[in-house]
Amino acid sequence: MEWRREIEAAASRIAGHVVRTPVIETGALWSRPIAVKLEQMQHTGSFKARGAFNTLSAVEVPKAGVVAASGGNHGAAVAYAAQRLGHAARIFVPEMAGPSKIGLIERTGADLTVVPGEYADALARAEAYRTQTGAMSVHAYDAPLTVAGQGTLMREWEAQGLSADTVLIAVGGGGLIAGAMAWLQGAKRIIAVEPASCNALGAALREGGPTDVPVSGVAANALGARRIGEICYGLAEAQGILSVTVSDEAITEAQTALWQAHRLLVEPAGACALAALRSGAFVPAENERVAVLLCGGNISPDPLG
Amino acid sequence: MEWRREIEAAASRIAGHVVRTPVIETGALWSRPIAVKLEQMQHTGSFKARGAFNTLSAVEVPKAGVVAASGGNHGAAVAYAAQRLGHAARIFVPEMAGPSKIGLIERTGADLTVVPGEYADALARAEAYRTQTGAMSVHAYDAPLTVAGQGTLMREWEAQGLSADTVLIAVGGGGLIAGAMAWLQGAKRIIAVEPASCNALGAALREGGPTDVPVSGVAANALGARRIGEICYGLAEAQGILSVTVSDEAITEAQTALWQAHRLLVEPAGACALAALRSGAFVPAENERVAVLLCGGNISPDPLG
Repeated sequence: MEWRREIEAAASRIAGHVVRTPVIETGALWSRPIAVKLEQMQHTGSFKARGAFNTLSAVEVPKAGVVAASGGNHGAAVAYAAQRLGHAARIFVPEMAGPSKIGLIERTGADLTVVPGEYADALARAEAYRTQTGAMSVHAYDAPLTVAGQGTLMREWEAQGLSADTVLIAVGGGGLIAGAMAWLQGAKRIIAVEPASCNALGAALREGGPTDVPVSGVAANALGARRIGEICYGLAEAQGILSVTVSDEAITEAQTALWQAHRLLVEPAGACALAALRSGAFVPAENERVAVLLCGGNISPDPLG
Repeated sequence: MEWRREIEAAASRIAGHVVRTPVIETGALWSRPIAVKLEQMQHTGSFKARGAFNTLSAVEVPKAGVVAASGGNHGAAVAYAAQRLGHAARIFVPEMAGPSKIGLIERTGADLTVVPGEYADALARAEAYRTQTGAMSVHAYDAPLTVAGQGTLMREWEAQGLSADTVLIAVGGGGLIAGAMAWLQGAKRIIAVEPASCNALGAALREGGPTDVPVSGVAANALGARRIGEICYGLAEAQGILSVTVSDEAITEAQTALWQAHRLLVEPAGACALAALRSGAFVPAENERVAVLLCGGNISPDPLG
């Protein structure tokens, strides 16, 4: 892939559709000042709007529109992007996603079907719908257009003056960090941060390829991919990315710190990268300047009902 | 007062102690794009840290330190600034302030006395303490150093490229808007926004001078000054500032919109200025470019306990 060109093209496609999320420099979150990008302020509360807009702008969307099975951030982003671009969207949400995430998808204006049971039940319904109608689906993390869309985040951050040596990024299925690796091409150090209980990238790097892992813990609803994406694995392996893990306690501590220091309320996945720094899971060198990405804010329960 | 010079001096004094709070441009909060400054991300969750740092840096603080009676943002800011500058701080908090605000002040490291009863009881204890110890107090809104400190916000926003014609600002005792008027000196239109049930500035402008008003409603714990400050009144009267009011329902609606559009969780006072725009209490001209200030984020109950 000519990744830099793909990401430039993505940035042109999604301009005007996504929030240029702000960056702060703060001394209140760690022992030294760090740069923090507030991507949880993105439309639908996570970076996933970038990949969704890029995909739906780059391809010809069938008349039947788009379909997704999702209990969270990806479904909300696809539904929002489809609605904004004038396409039909049908999202199958597992009942166990809970009222907060269901409300998030509902507010996009998409057609929503709440499916009794778990994610697999919603996925089966979505697959059946796709076959019947010809609607298209958007991969949550392991497709070039998705990765290129997420890559616009690091391009944007550079344009905002990112001067850190090292950027900490949370990893679930790997779409976000893949976009960052694809854009930076080694120009900065990237640290991959996973919950210890959702260690899909770490396992793949240890075992020499993507492999199924069990997932659980406070961030599993956003970072709990059972297998890392091939695109992410390929880039991480080639670039020799360091992967670290954090505990649920460290994630919760980082969430609290963000709220208390700056009134930033993020979901557990959104605090995961900061947790690596605060807990010492990643210890930078003495002069290493560090940046942290906050990637999602869809906390549950919804603080405003 | 040579306000511009005072505010420049304040900016020099507080540099390094306050957060340069970010600004976003967003089309998701109103029918046209608006600029929004996220001052709720300031230390202790409100702009009041600016005035507190300015005051405690400009005067010789007695050995006994500082004292305040407060159930909220002012007390937290004074306590935080004192602790950072190496002064003792004693804050008397009315028990009715509730666990969220008490926790906020507690976390600054100040000596905290929870006083049974209401604000007046805490104030009596603070006054007695001041007389006994010689500790100094910091006025919450009606002192030149406080106003000059708050004025650094608008100076900062201009340096960040504020291009709007009109800025909407919530008003309680008037320290924040006084700082903005003092800095701008008429260079931009300022709209004063008060809850209908905390209308101290509006009443003063109608009656030709500060006058006591009843206060109540969802934002009263931050905007419920019983009488507008003399400094604010003088500037507002001289500059012919337009004052509008919003209902509790409009405030709550704006709070929800901020959360749903950008995962910004602010207290009712923090959403008050936006409420004027969304509710139509203030209707800009067709080409009038509008900016909105979010001034506080100390929501109760604390979403993270």
